[in-house]
Amino acid sequence: MSDTDTDSSTAFPASFPLSAWATLSQRSVLQEMLKTASRPGLISFALGLPAADLFPTKEFAASVAEVLARDPRALQYEPASRDLRAYVAALMGQRGVSCDERDVFVTTGSQQALCLLSKLLLDPGGDLILEETVYPGLRSVIEPLRPRIWTVPTSPRDGIDVDAIEALLKRGVRPSFLYLSAEAQNPMAGRIPADRRERLVRLGESHRFPVVEDDAYGFLTYEDSARPALRSFSDGWVIYVGTFSKILAPALRVGWVVAPPHVLEKLPTLKEAGDIDTVTLSQRAVCAFLASNPLETHIAVLRREYRRRRDVMMQALDAHLSSVATWSVPGAGIFVWLEFPPDFDAGRLLTLALARGVAFLPGQGFFMERERRNCLRLSFPNCSDEVIQEGVRRLALAVGDYRAHSELR
Amino acid sequence: MSDTDTDSSTAFPASFPLSAWATLSQRSVLQEMLKTASRPGLISFALGLPAADLFPTKEFAASVAEVLARDPRALQYEPASRDLRAYVAALMGQRGVSCDERDVFVTTGSQQALCLLSKLLLDPGGDLILEETVYPGLRSVIEPLRPRIWTVPTSPRDGIDVDAIEALLKRGVRPSFLYLSAEAQNPMAGRIPADRRERLVRLGESHRFPVVEDDAYGFLTYEDSARPALRSFSDGWVIYVGTFSKILAPALRVGWVVAPPHVLEKLPTLKEAGDIDTVTLSQRAVCAFLASNPLETHIAVLRREYRRRRDVMMQALDAHLSSVATWSVPGAGIFVWLEFPPDFDAGRLLTLALARGVAFLPGQGFFMERERRNCLRLSFPNCSDEVIQEGVRRLALAVGDYRAHSELR
Repeated sequence: MSDTDTDSSTAFPASFPLSAWATLSQRSVLQEMLKTASRPGLISFALGLPAADLFPTKEFAASVAEVLARDPRALQYEPASRDLRAYVAALMGQRGVSCDERDVFVTTGSQQALCLLSKLLLDPGGDLILEETVYPGLRSVIEPLRPRIWTVPTSPRDGIDVDAIEALLKRGVRPSFLYLSAEAQNPMAGRIPADRRERLVRLGESHRFPVVEDDAYGFLTYEDSARPALRSFSDGWVIYVGTFSKILAPALRVGWVVAPPHVLEKLPTLKEAGDIDTVTLSQRAVCAFLASNPLETHIAVLRREYRRRRDVMMQALDAHLSSVATWSVPGAGIFVWLEFPPDFDAGRLLTLALARGVAFLPGQGFFMERERRNCLRLSFPNCSDEVIQEGVRRLALAVGDYRAHSELR
Repeated sequence: MSDTDTDSSTAFPASFPLSAWATLSQRSVLQEMLKTASRPGLISFALGLPAADLFPTKEFAASVAEVLARDPRALQYEPASRDLRAYVAALMGQRGVSCDERDVFVTTGSQQALCLLSKLLLDPGGDLILEETVYPGLRSVIEPLRPRIWTVPTSPRDGIDVDAIEALLKRGVRPSFLYLSAEAQNPMAGRIPADRRERLVRLGESHRFPVVEDDAYGFLTYEDSARPALRSFSDGWVIYVGTFSKILAPALRVGWVVAPPHVLEKLPTLKEAGDIDTVTLSQRAVCAFLASNPLETHIAVLRREYRRRRDVMMQALDAHLSSVATWSVPGAGIFVWLEFPPDFDAGRLLTLALARGVAFLPGQGFFMERERRNCLRLSFPNCSDEVIQEGVRRLALAVGDYRAHSELR
């Protein structure tokens, strides 16, 4: 208070200030949920966790042992492994994409890819086209740049509304990029029908903006043969983001970008500023693992078992919640999107659900604007049949509690 | 060329534009060097690599096997391990810092810590105080924010000039933060004398700006007992950045921040946007490794062996380069800073040195302003005695070539 060295009329600060943006930033709904969901006995459908019981821990341990015995430089700094990039390029064939290792850039999971691409493509205050519900990890990387956001409807069945994108473009909107998932969108699990995919890509080409395609769940399809990734329709205008998190293991933090040369050229500098390089041990161990364990076989196991767990959840939802909520059967991915009557509040339901011992993510955190409070997201892969059944039963009890509370008001 | 939809007079764009900042960004000198330095037969003193032959690969492989056998969730998403944070808090005691696990935030190496802290503390165009030579990784994270930079002299013996900081503050400079290394500064290897450290911290306190202390090499001291970290003098005004990269292995990508509560509160949101979480397998394996392999013992091995390699380099420099260059014997860290006569150009020398089969980093890339071209940085830990001797011999030959070239002009 005795500080006479300043003309500020505020009280003497207790500490140094943070940047303007940091001061405004808030803890994400996912962080809050991570804390809550670790409570003992709680059944959590909240986070997008792959099935831990299906991780190939034994085979992966052998791969780590092999690379550490072979060369101590498995623990050294190292640029992205050429072997790994070549493997990823081959894997992309399964998504209908033709590329080679020079088109692939390795990142610390797909989250880092989204972080780097946002910096690379978006100027502060620039325009973006997004689906009306968006993966919160994308939101967190664009928010500091305060973009002008144009949202288009998306649906749990057919994904983004391509007509609505075209209408925006006709109005003159010119985005720095369009971000979406064509396959198993997070949170709704929508899948763009095969015959609309090329049309969507041509809109980017003809209006000269890049499409950032987040394909985190693109290998996890259950209903029919996989639909080709958007990238398969255009090398120049689609930037593909992929990850081993959902098809091998998240804890490795290995993802990738397939992009045109002028994007690839800029990524190393941005990546180096972020974390220097991607965990060498993960990169080398993934290569060693893949050399003796075909990923196709592991993905086939995941598809079969995830589809089975999905069906267990569908049966439980049918039995307990069909009178109060609607949903689409997800044809891919790890999420189910439930919609309640318009006056319903999933945030209030969550409080009651936690008391009953089950967690989910309320839908409101996913909406970019015109927030709707009557939806929620469930994830099924990381639960046994019994846990799925018991969790949905508890959820139905919580809905009963909700109705009782509402009638008492 | 037939595009009539725009009033731009430029040719029809071949592809979409990048953000203004990305367009200006250039590949870093380290990236260029990484490419060059991998040439077969080349002796490289260029990069700051720890000694690969001293990595505890066998013990670490056992730790990875243990954590994978114990729990498949070693491959799952996971918030920062409490055990690891508690270990780091205990380790900080060796740097004279008293803290507990609630004060520690785990990052993907110290590079991510610098990236997150810059976003957290610095508004676009804000003021910064830096040493005249700076770690390029810090430069790459602050450049997008276009700060106003105030540099102060630093020396290969005594580190940053505390009087010069005080003079800047007297002129009214109020930085968002001061970044420095008190111990074994990169690139010069300077160490702030023990009796000036507290005074420096008090300048931050009294002028109300945080000191970001990068202590990457703080555990690697050779001459006397370690001098206390700046953080030991102030919990509220010093943010400490540490890493396992130089005392265990870089490929794990595990670093940490020790910071005041209002900084710690904001870090999880920023971290999540960057890469969700730090490699679970690394975190768990580091904990398992440390439970059966005291880090103190490993650090003692590193100190002893690095000091020996440093002395081999000193002898070789004395024998071959004492007539043309000067240097200080580094009392800590992994670098030697050579200074040639003022008209010397280390960039030109590098070209000749590469032809002779030896690489180093020219000093110019480290200067924030008033670039000097007559210095270079050598790193010694990742080389055998013979390689150090042969490399310095080649460097001396290159200096001879340089002089012959200069005389011919």
